[in-house]
Amino acid sequence: MTLQPVLIAGEWRQADSPAGSFQAMNPTTKTAMPDEYPVSSAADVDAALQAAYEAVVALRSIPASKIADFLEAFAANIEAHIDELVEMAYQESALPREPRLRSVELPRTTNQLRQAAAAARSFSWNHPTIDTKTNIRSKYGPLNGAVVVFGPNNFPFAFNSAAGGDFAAAIAAGNPVIAKANTGHPGTTRIFAEAAFEAVKATGLPKSMVQLIYRTPPDVGYTLVSHPLVGATGFTGSRNAGLRLKAAADKAGKPIYLEMSSINPVYFLPGALEERVTELAAEYAGSCMLGAGQFCTNPGFVVLLENAQSEAFIQGVAEMFRTKPAGILLSQRGPGDIADAIALMQQHGAEVVVGGKEVTDSGYSFENTLLRVSGDAFVQNPEPLQSEAFGAVGLCVLAKNEDQLLEIAEHLEGNLTGAIYSHKGGQDDALYNRIEPLLRTKVGRLLNDKMPTGVAVSPAMNHGGPYPSTGHPAFTAVGIPASMIRFGALYSYDNVRSHRLPPELQDKNPTGQTWRFIDGEWTQRDL
Amino acid sequence: MTLQPVLIAGEWRQADSPAGSFQAMNPTTKTAMPDEYPVSSAADVDAALQAAYEAVVALRSIPASKIADFLEAFAANIEAHIDELVEMAYQESALPREPRLRSVELPRTTNQLRQAAAAARSFSWNHPTIDTKTNIRSKYGPLNGAVVVFGPNNFPFAFNSAAGGDFAAAIAAGNPVIAKANTGHPGTTRIFAEAAFEAVKATGLPKSMVQLIYRTPPDVGYTLVSHPLVGATGFTGSRNAGLRLKAAADKAGKPIYLEMSSINPVYFLPGALEERVTELAAEYAGSCMLGAGQFCTNPGFVVLLENAQSEAFIQGVAEMFRTKPAGILLSQRGPGDIADAIALMQQHGAEVVVGGKEVTDSGYSFENTLLRVSGDAFVQNPEPLQSEAFGAVGLCVLAKNEDQLLEIAEHLEGNLTGAIYSHKGGQDDALYNRIEPLLRTKVGRLLNDKMPTGVAVSPAMNHGGPYPSTGHPAFTAVGIPASMIRFGALYSYDNVRSHRLPPELQDKNPTGQTWRFIDGEWTQRDL
Repeated sequence: MTLQPVLIAGEWRQADSPAGSFQAMNPTTKTAMPDEYPVSSAADVDAALQAAYEAVVALRSIPASKIADFLEAFAANIEAHIDELVEMAYQESALPREPRLRSVELPRTTNQLRQAAAAARSFSWNHPTIDTKTNIRSKYGPLNGAVVVFGPNNFPFAFNSAAGGDFAAAIAAGNPVIAKANTGHPGTTRIFAEAAFEAVKATGLPKSMVQLIYRTPPDVGYTLVSHPLVGATGFTGSRNAGLRLKAAADKAGKPIYLEMSSINPVYFLPGALEERVTELAAEYAGSCMLGAGQFCTNPGFVVLLENAQSEAFIQGVAEMFRTKPAGILLSQRGPGDIADAIALMQQHGAEVVVGGKEVTDSGYSFENTLLRVSGDAFVQNPEPLQSEAFGAVGLCVLAKNEDQLLEIAEHLEGNLTGAIYSHKGGQDDALYNRIEPLLRTKVGRLLNDKMPTGVAVSPAMNHGGPYPSTGHPAFTAVGIPASMIRFGALYSYDNVRSHRLPPELQDKNPTGQTWRFIDGEWTQRDL
Repeated sequence: MTLQPVLIAGEWRQADSPAGSFQAMNPTTKTAMPDEYPVSSAADVDAALQAAYEAVVALRSIPASKIADFLEAFAANIEAHIDELVEMAYQESALPREPRLRSVELPRTTNQLRQAAAAARSFSWNHPTIDTKTNIRSKYGPLNGAVVVFGPNNFPFAFNSAAGGDFAAAIAAGNPVIAKANTGHPGTTRIFAEAAFEAVKATGLPKSMVQLIYRTPPDVGYTLVSHPLVGATGFTGSRNAGLRLKAAADKAGKPIYLEMSSINPVYFLPGALEERVTELAAEYAGSCMLGAGQFCTNPGFVVLLENAQSEAFIQGVAEMFRTKPAGILLSQRGPGDIADAIALMQQHGAEVVVGGKEVTDSGYSFENTLLRVSGDAFVQNPEPLQSEAFGAVGLCVLAKNEDQLLEIAEHLEGNLTGAIYSHKGGQDDALYNRIEPLLRTKVGRLLNDKMPTGVAVSPAMNHGGPYPSTGHPAFTAVGIPASMIRFGALYSYDNVRSHRLPPELQDKNPTGQTWRFIDGEWTQRDL
C-alpha cells in the first residue's frame, strides 16, 4: 500500500526513509481506516526544519497584512471543504457530525483563524510601546525559527495542529508551522494541510509556511522540539508525553507551551445545593458527559460537604449517568486508560456509585461513571485520587466539615479551571470567601455557578493554569491576542532611525486604529 | 567570630546549621572584609520557604496600594542610608563612589522601586481585560509562592537581590522575595535588607515579605529554585551557574528567568567610519571601558569591513585603551577569567592589539584589551570566539567583504543587544537593510548609532534576548511594567459575581485612571 504523502518544503511527497507506518482507527466500528500514514524519521524532520527556516528568513520582509490574507483565505478554503472535513473527522473521532463537528467546532475553527488574522492586521498582539523621552520603542514579533504544533485527539478541528488555536496563533505571530498530526485523525489533518497549502500558494506566502508530518518515533520528536532551527513548540496532550518533550526542549533553551491535564474541581457549596440541587445535578451531569467526557475542561472532580443535599446531588447525577447512553471514545486506548484511573482511585478508597465498566457491545466506550470518596481518604492520598480519567467520569469528594473543604483545595494540583457554585442569596458567601483565595491559586480560570466545559475564544480567556496543567502559569492557549504572545519574542528598538522602524513603531499609526502604549497611555493617535 | 545573621521569618537570626562561612573581598586592597557571613544549609532555605508561603497567603487579602506603600517607604529608607550604602558598596565592589554609586546607581535603584510602586498602584502591569459579551475578565496576578532573586556582582544597587530590578518587580507583582545575596557584596545586601525590613514593619506587610540568605552550597540552591513552595526565580549571573539552576527549576515546572551572558555585537558600517572614525573610536572605547567593562551590555564584539578606515578605528581604540588606566575588577576571579577567555580567543586566531595581561600592582585588575581576528577565522570557530571576557575587552572581527558581514551575524548566539552604526547621509542603507533583519533576530535590543551600555528604565526597554543571553525571548528584566509579568500568572474570571472580582476587574475603574482592555479597546472608563 502506498503511504500518504507528507507536506515538506512546499511539496506533497513520500516520507524519506520512514520509520514505519500506521492507520487511524474508526472508533465507532473499531476497524482500521483505509489510508496508511508514514512514521517520519529524522530525515523528514530535518528537511522540514531547514525548509521552515527559509520561510523564517522570507517572512522578515513580508507585511503582517499578507499573513492575515493567508489566514482568511485558509478559513474560506476550510468552508469549501466542510463536508469532506466533517465526514473524515466523524470517521476518525466518532464525534457527532451535528451539532458538534459541523455547527460548533468547525465555525469555532474558522472564527479563530479570522480573529488571528484581525490581530495580525491590527497589530493588537504586538503590544507596540513607545517611550518618546528616551526614543526607545518595543513590540512583540516573530520567533527566529519554526513553531512546531502537536495537536490533541479530542478536538480534530479547533485544536488541530494544521488549523487550530496554536496553529492560528503561531502563524498570525509571523512564524511558519510544522504540524505534527495527532495520530487519531491524520486524514482530517491532511485535509486541513491541503486547504492551508492552497491558501499559502494563493496568497504568495513562503512555500514552507505550513508543513505536515504525521508521527515520529519518540527520539525524533525530542530532536524536533530541541533543534536549533525551532522557535518554540505548542503541545496539547497527555502529561506523560508533554513532560518528555518539555525535558528535551528545556535542555536546549527552546520555549515549549504545554497543555497537559486537568480534572477541573467544582465546589458545590451547601447553600447552592439546598437552593437548587436537582438543577445542579442535571447541569453537572450534562457537562461531565459532554463529548463523552473528553474535554480538557471536563469537571472530573466534585467537592461537597457531607450532608443530605449532597447525597441527593450524587443520586441525581447517578440517575442521569445511568439513563444516558455512554458515548463513543476517541481512541482504542480510551476504555483501558479510564479503567486504570478508576482502579487507582478505588485502591485509595473511592467507591463506584454508578458505571465503572467498559461497554463492549459498541464502539470504544465506557460507562458514564460516578465515584465517591471521603475527604479523609482524599487528603491521605491526594495524588492517586487526582488521576485524570479521560471520559465521562466524576469523583465526588465528601468533606466532613468546612475546614476540610479548604484542606482539599490545599491538596489540589494545578488545574485549568475551578468552579464554585454558591447560594444565590449570599448564604454561602462566608464560606466562599474562605475557599476562593485558595482555589484561585490552583487554577487558570475561576468560574461561578457555571460549568467549565465551554472555552470561549475571548481576549479574557485563560485556557492555561499552574503546573502541571500547563508548563507555565502566565500563558493561555485560547483567546486572541493573548495566545499569540507564546509564539513571539520581545524586540526593543533603541534610537533606531525612524524610517527603519517596523510600521507599528513608526510615528504614524499604521492603521489609524492600532492601540499603542505611548508614554504611559494607551492611544490610537499618531506621534 | 560571630557570623552575620540571616533574615528569615521576620527575624535577624543566626543561620541554622550553616554549611560554612565566607568573607567578601575588598577588590581595591585585595584583603578580606571584616564581616563573616554564613553559607546557609537546607534548614535555612526550608524555613525561609515556609515563612514566605505564609506571606503568600496573607498577601491574598492585601491591596496593591499597600505593597506600593512599602516600595515607597523602602525607597525613602534607602535614601536615609545612602552614605552607609555607598561606602559599603565601594569597599565591596571598588566601583567609584561618585558619580557611579551615589549619583547614578543609587537614584536608579530608588527610581525603580518607585516606578514599581506606581505600577502596582495603577494596575498597569495587571493588564486588566474585560469581555462584556461573555462576562469573562482576566488579569495578571501574583504567583502562588515566593520569588527567589539571585543578584549579579556588577550592580550592587540596581540589580541587588534585596533592592534591585528583580526585587522591585517581584514585590510589586505581589510576591514575597527570598533574596540570595551576591557573595561579592553581602554587606551592601544586608543594609538593603535591613532597610527593606524596616519598611515591611512600618507599612504592616507580612513579616516574611523580604528574607535574606547569603550563600548556599550548590545542591541547596537547586532545591531552592525547584521547591514546591517557590513561585519563580530571577537570576542574573554567569551562564554556567544559570544553566544549572535552570535545569533544576525546569524539571520541577518552576519558571526561572535568567540573564546570563552577552557580548553585544556592534557593527560599524564603512560609511559611518568614513564619516566619523575618530568620534566612533572614542565612543566605542569609552563604552567598552565603562565600569571596567563589567556591564551585561558591554560591547565586547565589533564587526568591521577590512579596509583602511577600520584599521584607523582599531588604532584609535587601541590608543585610548592604552592611555586610560585599567579599572578595578569586582572579584578575585575577574583577572583569571578574563585571561582564560582571551587565551581561548587567541587559540582560535585572535591577536592582541593592546593589553592582554593582568595588572598586578593594584587591586584586581586587567589591562584594557583589544583583540582582532579575521572574518574567516571567526566563521570557522564562532563559539570560542564569542567567549565573554567580563571586563574592558573588545574583539574586532574583520570581514573580507559585505557577504561575510552577514555570515558573521548568522553565527552569532543570542545577545541582549546589537548595534549598527551607519553613515548619516544614508550611504550605508543598502548594507544596513541586508544586515538588520538578521542581526535583529539575534538580539533583544537593536540600537542605531548608540552604544548599548546604558539600559534605561523605560517601558519600552528590553533587557532580555534570545537564548542563551537569557532563558526566554519574550521577557525583559528591566523596564516597568513589562518586567513584572515574569513574576505573575494569568487569572481569568468567568461569570464571577461582580462583588467578588478583584478591584481592577470590577465594573468601576478602581482608580479612575487605570487602563483596561475592554471589548477590544484600551480605555479608562467605567463599565
